[in-house]
Amino acid sequence: MKETSNLDEFASIHHWTAGRQGSAWQRERGVVIGIGDDTAVVDPASAADGIAAPKRMLLAVDTMVETVHFKPSTMRDEDVGYKALAANISDIAAMGGVPLHVLVSVSVPPSYTPERMRRLYDGLYECAERYGVAIVGGDTTSAPEHLVVAVTVVGTVEAGRELCRSGAKPGDAVFVTGAVGMSAAGLHALLAEEERVVLQPADFSAGREGLLVQAHQRPNPSVRAGRLLLEHGSCRSLNDVSDGLASEAWEIAEASGLRLVLYEKLLPKSGSLAAYASRVGIDPLEWMLYGGEDYVLLGTIAPEHAEAMRVAFHQEGIPFFIIGETVMGEPAVELIRHDQAYMEKESLPHLEKRVLLKKRGYNHFST
Amino acid sequence: MKETSNLDEFASIHHWTAGRQGSAWQRERGVVIGIGDDTAVVDPASAADGIAAPKRMLLAVDTMVETVHFKPSTMRDEDVGYKALAANISDIAAMGGVPLHVLVSVSVPPSYTPERMRRLYDGLYECAERYGVAIVGGDTTSAPEHLVVAVTVVGTVEAGRELCRSGAKPGDAVFVTGAVGMSAAGLHALLAEEERVVLQPADFSAGREGLLVQAHQRPNPSVRAGRLLLEHGSCRSLNDVSDGLASEAWEIAEASGLRLVLYEKLLPKSGSLAAYASRVGIDPLEWMLYGGEDYVLLGTIAPEHAEAMRVAFHQEGIPFFIIGETVMGEPAVELIRHDQAYMEKESLPHLEKRVLLKKRGYNHFST
Repeated sequence: MKETSNLDEFASIHHWTAGRQGSAWQRERGVVIGIGDDTAVVDPASAADGIAAPKRMLLAVDTMVETVHFKPSTMRDEDVGYKALAANISDIAAMGGVPLHVLVSVSVPPSYTPERMRRLYDGLYECAERYGVAIVGGDTTSAPEHLVVAVTVVGTVEAGRELCRSGAKPGDAVFVTGAVGMSAAGLHALLAEEERVVLQPADFSAGREGLLVQAHQRPNPSVRAGRLLLEHGSCRSLNDVSDGLASEAWEIAEASGLRLVLYEKLLPKSGSLAAYASRVGIDPLEWMLYGGEDYVLLGTIAPEHAEAMRVAFHQEGIPFFIIGETVMGEPAVELIRHDQAYMEKESLPHLEKRVLLKKRGYNHFST
Repeated sequence: MKETSNLDEFASIHHWTAGRQGSAWQRERGVVIGIGDDTAVVDPASAADGIAAPKRMLLAVDTMVETVHFKPSTMRDEDVGYKALAANISDIAAMGGVPLHVLVSVSVPPSYTPERMRRLYDGLYECAERYGVAIVGGDTTSAPEHLVVAVTVVGTVEAGRELCRSGAKPGDAVFVTGAVGMSAAGLHALLAEEERVVLQPADFSAGREGLLVQAHQRPNPSVRAGRLLLEHGSCRSLNDVSDGLASEAWEIAEASGLRLVLYEKLLPKSGSLAAYASRVGIDPLEWMLYGGEDYVLLGTIAPEHAEAMRVAFHQEGIPFFIIGETVMGEPAVELIRHDQAYMEKESLPHLEKRVLLKKRGYNHFST
């Protein structure tokens, strides 16, 4: 749920937090992984009693701000509640963990009537029900103008088996657990509709754009996929696609100190996305690389285990696509493009174009 | 950190959450105490493996919103950071727990430059250092106009020994662990100053109001007091004074199903508060009962243990005042007032006046 319109989150956090609490100091307090991965990993029992517990705790917070992450024409109140929690559960999934407990902080402006807030909580509880997480507390304040929802999720993971961004090794296969770009295309469809009628979100459920809009308003975090990856034991690094494929791939590249090479023709593209992109005359690759909030998982795996993993995913009805590989080198993300004319017949390796992908992330309402 | 200007927090939360997730459903997920006390109490190990752990986790979130909880004339950026964390640590203290890990969500408007944010984090880390808690993660987003800081604190407590609001029994002594009303008086001094010069917060450090302003800007949560109460084993109910003495006393009365009777002459009043109130011609009792954010602890204890507890507190240099008692009856909070003219000589019981205190809480900038 990061965005970069007013500030670069990574640079800012570094500026605010770097050099503050040493890692030895934090370790003494049961911190296994602090700032810098999808979630923090802590062991409160070891902090209290010096005895390491079999399970560690995962802690993550995600914030949605009216006008920055949503507006009434793109998200119903129920959707805001649902997605605020879903985005957070996705962070737990990206560590291979199980989400358990939730705190909700809402800052409520006068425009949010009790009925609107009730609908927002309808969405929150719908998502909580779906993923079996308990809403255990929160804080409610008023706000002068814009709604802010900050959701904290606490989960557990088997100690030492957390799936971090930093574990990739050269020669790994790069995988993704579902189609990318659909949420961004759905947002595009919603904003295009808004230009015609400025009212409630349009009802897209009947049309083909329905799937795209659904992907934007009601994303499904990949908890089961994360657990499969952890249980199988061969996954080396993992991230969730909240900020766009390119940005998340960059995070793995930098955390692991290597280069990711992705192949355009291997990127999973949904039929709805292709059809909508063609109809509105936009290159779908933009959405697939830089659109965010797909909440599928992106990771790397030892190549000899990739096929077994694909089969394991297939048996659970979850997609698993190999989309590239890791190589030694200065951290970066490359895309191998193919000549479009030839692509229609067959891809020819000597026509590859190697493009360095930008690190930029997702911006909801860029102008 | 609750406030009631635009909405009644308790009624709202009830409207949004009541009847959603049954307590059996939550228990299966390791929830010991859900919505309704200072913190949630969870046992993630029991949710995962069915084995109860010796320590339980305490989870709390507190939110500060610019213009609702502070403005530039009342709080420096460092103070905002410090207090956002302090308020939350106080919730852990009010359960008898130990705060350990912190997540910080900030929504940053354009008016907050990198330097201002850096100062805010200076304050956050100063408070973290003081209480030995590790800042382990967070989320940063932009905001259209007003800063919102939501801080989540995770702590631990010995299983089954959590100090809840609901444990008071008739005949308990009611205690408080420090003077009340100082923060509200400090805010009054800051706002009075603002009327003269609309600039930075004035430097009160030299004058007598310094202590009051300090109490408002840099409150000290009562972690050690909470631990003492838990270790001693005789404390029956506990709350922190975030919303004002009357409101917190009401919470204990309602959660425990009894009546609290407080004595005006027993309420601890600081010399600074008395002097300032007299100078500006305001009844200090208003601040002592309805001013918030003192972050001392209010609770009840079996009367036969009250003196031993007072001695234990005295040995650690922490105040401990008995201010009343609990009686059977419809939940409510009463104050026994004394005739002022006679008070100057000696209090005479037959001149007592019994006043039912209102449940209302603290409002920062009421008009």
